[in-house]
Amino acid sequence: MPKEIIKDLGEKELIRRLSRYMPCNQTSDDCALLKTNRKDLLINTDLMVENTHFNDQILSPKDLGWKSVVSNVSDLLSSGCDQILGINVGLVLPSTTEWKWVKDVYEGINEALCDYGGTILGGDCSSGKIKTICITAFGSQGQLKMRRYSCKPNEVLLTTGLHGLSKLGFILKSQSLETKTFLKQSLKSDSKKAFSRPRPNPTILNQIIKAKRDSISNKIGCTDSSDGLYQAISDLAYSSGCTAVLDYLKIRKHKYWPVGDLWDKYYFFGGEDYELILSLPKEWAKELMKIEQSVSEIGFFKKGKASVELINFPNDNKLPLEIFSHF
Amino acid sequence: MPKEIIKDLGEKELIRRLSRYMPCNQTSDDCALLKTNRKDLLINTDLMVENTHFNDQILSPKDLGWKSVVSNVSDLLSSGCDQILGINVGLVLPSTTEWKWVKDVYEGINEALCDYGGTILGGDCSSGKIKTICITAFGSQGQLKMRRYSCKPNEVLLTTGLHGLSKLGFILKSQSLETKTFLKQSLKSDSKKAFSRPRPNPTILNQIIKAKRDSISNKIGCTDSSDGLYQAISDLAYSSGCTAVLDYLKIRKHKYWPVGDLWDKYYFFGGEDYELILSLPKEWAKELMKIEQSVSEIGFFKKGKASVELINFPNDNKLPLEIFSHF
Repeated sequence: MPKEIIKDLGEKELIRRLSRYMPCNQTSDDCALLKTNRKDLLINTDLMVENTHFNDQILSPKDLGWKSVVSNVSDLLSSGCDQILGINVGLVLPSTTEWKWVKDVYEGINEALCDYGGTILGGDCSSGKIKTICITAFGSQGQLKMRRYSCKPNEVLLTTGLHGLSKLGFILKSQSLETKTFLKQSLKSDSKKAFSRPRPNPTILNQIIKAKRDSISNKIGCTDSSDGLYQAISDLAYSSGCTAVLDYLKIRKHKYWPVGDLWDKYYFFGGEDYELILSLPKEWAKELMKIEQSVSEIGFFKKGKASVELINFPNDNKLPLEIFSHF
Repeated sequence: MPKEIIKDLGEKELIRRLSRYMPCNQTSDDCALLKTNRKDLLINTDLMVENTHFNDQILSPKDLGWKSVVSNVSDLLSSGCDQILGINVGLVLPSTTEWKWVKDVYEGINEALCDYGGTILGGDCSSGKIKTICITAFGSQGQLKMRRYSCKPNEVLLTTGLHGLSKLGFILKSQSLETKTFLKQSLKSDSKKAFSRPRPNPTILNQIIKAKRDSISNKIGCTDSSDGLYQAISDLAYSSGCTAVLDYLKIRKHKYWPVGDLWDKYYFFGGEDYELILSLPKEWAKELMKIEQSVSEIGFFKKGKASVELINFPNDNKLPLEIFSHF
């Protein structure tokens, strides 16, 4: 079959094809309409830019579509969203882009929406030299008001999973040869999966609610670790105005995660992990860890200046300070 | 003063500066929170891409900020939005971008929000080779349900203003010398303004409501002319499944708009006009034109196949078919 190029299809045909991915009642009008369920709305925008976040060598278009939705979902979940309502998709494409590439991106987008809820409500499409996806996602605010600024001293610092895997996956995919031959196969495949198909836990908020005693407040300190574990903890400490204490000995790693400074750097600063980093009163934390095995304690909050304190770390409790940056 | 470049500022400082443009309670968290007023939500996304929609030679960063908001506002108004609630801004910047450029874009954005309502709720920022702004705007659905598919036979086809000016403004700004010296000065300045600072009429929906008799339905056929006048009429006809009749003799032009095929082409296919193109029952249309001088009749709808019929046009009622395309 001959390759179909966007430019040859024409804009009308492109829009007609894209509209197949939207519910019938939303197509071909100026705006999307969202019937709100009387709850407050959580809104999040995430950009994926070619050669900054992805390229065709390291991320397939289906995985790109998946990931561009899921990075939004992760932010919504970390704010206490109880239902994903939909997304708007802004798509920039070179006119030489193959239709198959676009189709695959939309299939990846819809796979993610299938798993997490919501539909494509609308969007815009334009030509441009650099492929770019800008997704704005909408969800309803559930009963848990999860905010960066709500951590309190004496609370337990928790995470919903492991870190560093996505960064390792990126490294493995960026290099044409898998030079890291000393790494165990399961670590390699788990890392690649973490990079291409991150899966925030969609039932985690229900578990947090289940573990809660009725009398406790609904305000929880929380963020996601999309900019790396260390950055997430630092954001919580600074927004909440207290000290986060991170205990190296409590941190769970992948069974085959190697030891050493480089590997710690990947672990704490890797980024594109989509776990929740949260703060809970002791009893609540204990109950949550009992019913949800993936959640683990990694430290605590205490009164003090807004900062991250490291304990039980190799190298005198020092880390090479390398914050994840998009620039 | 030395030029400040994004890369030297660092991401943290950039985000700190950008957060000045947002209301205090929205900054530094994972999501934006929108308190809905129990009305349905209208959502619109519009992309502005460097070298596709703008470049620094033809559009100042302030005008770019203004225009990227206003193109969204135009879509919201054309769907019957009675209040602009806010926007999310996705911004892609080369790391060599000057801070002043970014600041000016945000000032233009805020000037538009000042005039039309709403605030910056949140967004995302990333590095990338091509400057790109992706704005998603939110508004509440007012009492007028304005949709492309609601035009009915025997209704009057109306527009809220003149066309072609933005295209002429673009041409004048693209050429380093103003070769079109035969054009009147007021046409040139009006055209440049239409291109750089388009101003959809924010009170037009109130006027449409004022002109309405209580017994008439709230469903109106409407779109905006951002893709050109002809495209807008064609969209209405196709979505509503009837024939739009466009009467050349009824079309108002700028006082100094020249005569000729080229000028008709600019007029009907120019694009980036942000007027409403709407369909109203005769009495309602008459009353509206009485109280709102900018509105004029340009044709009507009739039973028949979805199409645009031209009457009283020069050249045997034929137009060179050149649809506005983003590719």
